[in-house]
Amino acid sequence: MAKAFAPATIANLGPGFDFLGCAVEGLGDVVCAEISESVPPGEILIQKVTGDGGRLSYNQKKNCAGIAGKATMELLGVTSFGLSLSLFKGLPLGSGLGSSAASAAAAAVAVNALFGNALTKAQLVQAGLISEAVVSGYHADNVAPSLMGGFVLIRSYSPLHLIPLNFPLNKDLFFVLVTPVFEAPTKKMRAVLPNTIDMRQHVSNCSQGAALVTAILEGDIALFGNAMSSDSIVEPLRSPFIPGMAAVKLAAIQAGAHGCTISGAGPTAVAVTDGIEQGKAIGASMKAAFLEGGNLLSSASVYKLDRRGAKVVETSQN
Amino acid sequence: MAKAFAPATIANLGPGFDFLGCAVEGLGDVVCAEISESVPPGEILIQKVTGDGGRLSYNQKKNCAGIAGKATMELLGVTSFGLSLSLFKGLPLGSGLGSSAASAAAAAVAVNALFGNALTKAQLVQAGLISEAVVSGYHADNVAPSLMGGFVLIRSYSPLHLIPLNFPLNKDLFFVLVTPVFEAPTKKMRAVLPNTIDMRQHVSNCSQGAALVTAILEGDIALFGNAMSSDSIVEPLRSPFIPGMAAVKLAAIQAGAHGCTISGAGPTAVAVTDGIEQGKAIGASMKAAFLEGGNLLSSASVYKLDRRGAKVVETSQN
Repeated sequence: MAKAFAPATIANLGPGFDFLGCAVEGLGDVVCAEISESVPPGEILIQKVTGDGGRLSYNQKKNCAGIAGKATMELLGVTSFGLSLSLFKGLPLGSGLGSSAASAAAAAVAVNALFGNALTKAQLVQAGLISEAVVSGYHADNVAPSLMGGFVLIRSYSPLHLIPLNFPLNKDLFFVLVTPVFEAPTKKMRAVLPNTIDMRQHVSNCSQGAALVTAILEGDIALFGNAMSSDSIVEPLRSPFIPGMAAVKLAAIQAGAHGCTISGAGPTAVAVTDGIEQGKAIGASMKAAFLEGGNLLSSASVYKLDRRGAKVVETSQN
Repeated sequence: MAKAFAPATIANLGPGFDFLGCAVEGLGDVVCAEISESVPPGEILIQKVTGDGGRLSYNQKKNCAGIAGKATMELLGVTSFGLSLSLFKGLPLGSGLGSSAASAAAAAVAVNALFGNALTKAQLVQAGLISEAVVSGYHADNVAPSLMGGFVLIRSYSPLHLIPLNFPLNKDLFFVLVTPVFEAPTKKMRAVLPNTIDMRQHVSNCSQGAALVTAILEGDIALFGNAMSSDSIVEPLRSPFIPGMAAVKLAAIQAGAHGCTISGAGPTAVAVTDGIEQGKAIGASMKAAFLEGGNLLSSASVYKLDRRGAKVVETSQN
């Protein structure tokens, strides 16, 4: 038996749309993988799913943990054992925190641990991508940071080139995540985006994305927040579909956040700060703004940047 | 009297189109500024221009050095002296090496030196921008690195936010610059670009631009060259207008360059390598490719990254 935890992730981070994401500490999903004699060799069975409010499929070909677990078995070349998986959801579904990616990452790490951790995390991203493609679209900006931790730049898909961006170890970065009781389906949030954009917008967003990466590598939290806040393509189009989002962003900045944007495809709002106490105050302001500006209840928490990514939390042999 | 030198610059660097540039060591323009009693107070006179083949204007409102010199006087608040400028062109005109920017930068630094260097280099960029706007379009990706040295990220224009990107001091970076005998007017090279681009191209180029910045800050020369080579928007459209450019790029890579693209709006081709000797061999291959593929004669040289930018080279008092 091997049990693995994979963290929540914030994709896009403003001008990093579709190529940048990072992991946050403490919030995430757990998958327990076991070799089972009652499962046909080379196959996977979803034995239990908890914390999802009964919404996730037990069909191993539709469940992210099942798909990623199976893909990991194939990468490992495992054909003589059958596995059963249990998934404990810590993440809310469809909230913009990389819920499907965390399940896939935890499953991949748990299955890999059962067979001596033969695959690297970068290889496990391949398994996670297969799951993401089925469940929420072929994109690595959640599953790569969930597996690898920290910030990950997705430079290209063919070949898959992932560049870890190391935020300086001597600095702390805190994210305020405020999730309203509201659904913003990724599909719908994709549909509001245009197929073409203005060349000037392209140059502007590219330079902001470049500033964002500079801020990460140099540990410049103020610049990071400011650049994250500066997406002029995606956020302005998605924000109107999240009631109160504009007010929430304003409230975060007024409460002292260095920046604020939509996490992933939303509806979670993410703000950036350099301390837990400031983070709590910022979160309270953002919650109030969701209620006043959007008539939405929400929950707010402060999380540190996760530098490690998915990890094995328990193993045992029967 | 004050004499200043300002280096040649490579703008765009592939996916850094319109927001990134860097300076190269040793190649550039010189401007000599003198207080002259025969020039009306607050005014500037262009006394001499050499090295331009007689092509540059002596009209101080049309000459880049004249415009930038005057703008610098205004920033300094100089109203009681008249100045005369002499411009010594070291850079070929319209070659994609920031010729107008180098003249403007040298003039700004020379005039500033006459009055105690009261302005910072970042302030002098404002003067340079005024000149660039008249002569080649409002853009800082040549004049900012020519003044400041190294790599400069132009994050935004209003407000003007320039971010110096420090390439690690313990590493050397060499550029092979090959300039064919051919004119590629910036205006024409602008006109071949579309007003809108595909969203997928945007994401792809943004991620390559982010990789380019990562490579600079981490001193990863191979990644730098590779990312510089990966622009899928501008270079493919401009390359066909520079005879032989596709063959030159191929020849550079085959000769061991880490990457190759068009410098600025061209026609100069720029390749990246980590040593002078390799650079010379790469340059010879590129020259041969310009001749074979484009029927163009060219000159090739290898330059180190300039980390210092425009500088005063001589001062004297009469």
